[in-house]
Amino acid sequence: MSQSTLGALLSNIHPVSDELIDRAQRRLDLKTKPRGSLGRLEWLACRICAVQDRIDPQLGERAIVVMAADHGVAAEGVSAYPQEVTGQMLLNFANGGAAINVLAKQADARVVVVDMGVSSPVDAPNVRRVRIAPGTQNMRHGAAMSRDQALSAIAAGGQIADELSDAGVSAIGIGEMGIANTTASSAIAAVLTGVAPEEVTGLGTGIDDATRARKIAVIRDAIAVNRPDSADPLHVLSCVGGFEIAGLAGVVLGAAARRRLVVVDGFISSVAALVAVRLQPNVRDYLVTAHKSVEPGHQIVLRELGAPPLLDLAMRLGEGTGAALAMQLITAAAAVMNDMASFDSAGVTDTGK
Amino acid sequence: MSQSTLGALLSNIHPVSDELIDRAQRRLDLKTKPRGSLGRLEWLACRICAVQDRIDPQLGERAIVVMAADHGVAAEGVSAYPQEVTGQMLLNFANGGAAINVLAKQADARVVVVDMGVSSPVDAPNVRRVRIAPGTQNMRHGAAMSRDQALSAIAAGGQIADELSDAGVSAIGIGEMGIANTTASSAIAAVLTGVAPEEVTGLGTGIDDATRARKIAVIRDAIAVNRPDSADPLHVLSCVGGFEIAGLAGVVLGAAARRRLVVVDGFISSVAALVAVRLQPNVRDYLVTAHKSVEPGHQIVLRELGAPPLLDLAMRLGEGTGAALAMQLITAAAAVMNDMASFDSAGVTDTGK
Repeated sequence: MSQSTLGALLSNIHPVSDELIDRAQRRLDLKTKPRGSLGRLEWLACRICAVQDRIDPQLGERAIVVMAADHGVAAEGVSAYPQEVTGQMLLNFANGGAAINVLAKQADARVVVVDMGVSSPVDAPNVRRVRIAPGTQNMRHGAAMSRDQALSAIAAGGQIADELSDAGVSAIGIGEMGIANTTASSAIAAVLTGVAPEEVTGLGTGIDDATRARKIAVIRDAIAVNRPDSADPLHVLSCVGGFEIAGLAGVVLGAAARRRLVVVDGFISSVAALVAVRLQPNVRDYLVTAHKSVEPGHQIVLRELGAPPLLDLAMRLGEGTGAALAMQLITAAAAVMNDMASFDSAGVTDTGK
Repeated sequence: MSQSTLGALLSNIHPVSDELIDRAQRRLDLKTKPRGSLGRLEWLACRICAVQDRIDPQLGERAIVVMAADHGVAAEGVSAYPQEVTGQMLLNFANGGAAINVLAKQADARVVVVDMGVSSPVDAPNVRRVRIAPGTQNMRHGAAMSRDQALSAIAAGGQIADELSDAGVSAIGIGEMGIANTTASSAIAAVLTGVAPEEVTGLGTGIDDATRARKIAVIRDAIAVNRPDSADPLHVLSCVGGFEIAGLAGVVLGAAARRRLVVVDGFISSVAALVAVRLQPNVRDYLVTAHKSVEPGHQIVLRELGAPPLLDLAMRLGEGTGAALAMQLITAAAAVMNDMASFDSAGVTDTGK
């Protein structure tokens, strides 16, 4: 993908219609329930309508795109798990044994597993191989990737969203796996939001306080060495990003361009969505944030994304697990809009309250 | 049901095994994810195991019992809707047009609609008729019901839970409908928790501040006139209760006696669960609270029930709608316990973190 191709993609992402949201809410207000009594589920129903630009939303297929990649910065000892776990988990996704497989099945969503660049390729037929490189470079000593690599990863994500849209998928969840990718995400979040690294750096998969201190120091070093330009999301990605994060930003952009609902998972996925929002602010209109994770940086990124999260279950796994749970709320919200009786049709007295 | 029959039911409700909960957590800790990273979903999975007393929980059928009844206190003008709406909504439940029908269908749960005593009977074959009386008496001027009526309502609920258990239902949600039943619920909550009526009295289906002030005054009068004994839940029910609230307390007791998971909906359902807990504290072990409603009294009652709610979607509809949404999380949690791969089986490195 060239910079100009990215520009064309961004120009295809349009804001949703406020008037359509109002019409959707008016339709809900005729249903047999006190006005507004389904709370955030009503907000969600209107959001789905707005994304689809119709007041009778049609939820077709659902998918969760799980992208995995390795990170050079793992060499700094910032994770509770060794780097080999990225590839092992990729294989676990392919074999259907991970949490995301189990939860996506419950939500009737297909899982699209993508190798964006794990250190060793995984031999499994149902893994899509993009493999920008066998892991990023160590951002503590220089750029994690080139600008071209960042663009290629975004292009691959956009292409996947496009294909899923062609196949009738109407809601696309995003999830990830990559040892040390909370380090990359915290670095991106610090740069894009302007807060100090320690405010957006947590315990990841379960590190101790000493490791967290090292993680913060590594992020500080990476920012000092690379000097990412916060006004240029591609530069930020190339300095301190990850292939799966760039790829998911591409999925978000591609989905928004095709007017598909994007279901954002936890901290790392939210950082990918924030990169997409910084490239094209209209993206916000297509986002549903699934849950609030326990990573401290997530709250800060969620504020930037605009939409408050649907679930708060103290989860911190990633993989798209929160997105899978939120898919069920999305299906429920669309059903409320389409299938509930009106006061009129049910013969129920409407007091307008 | 006599007082002694109730005693027999209560003596059949046993605490769950802490040792089983520990075993369930140890089983989860072998799954391919960082320890504890699925947060509240892990708590839920262990809770399901504890209720079923096995570490491979079997979720069979799910049901939501929706009980409707009228309230004499509606004559005091405490609701935004006229009393006729109770019966109209009961018919709407029977015809499948209400929010609970739509959401229960999404959750693959059957809806059991029970007329516990609406003012005019509804002509629909799929409504179970208990009909303790055509509505309670106005609690502002005397007891809402007799002690025998409270016992009969509890017995009917217990019987329904028993039949559902026989039919293979493993998780029973509770929901309700009844114009003015937040007034009854606030009165019960005030008596059982010892807080002032204004702290547990909200806007119900959408009343204004003047109506809320009247509602609080009515509750104060009802408590002054009836002098409910907070140590005697049956006396509290008879003074300021409702037939659907007593009936749902019976469902909770019956489900707990059969070791079925109880999924508690919003404020009114939580008050019914609290009545059951006060009759038999072991009931707590069988409860999952589905969501936190916007009714201010709900928070106070939730604290008494012990388990923090799963969802916080600013809902305030009742009917069991929150319970239906939570059913999907329950199914997901059980699937995580049963279907996820272990570190060993998937060949993923376990660092014990």
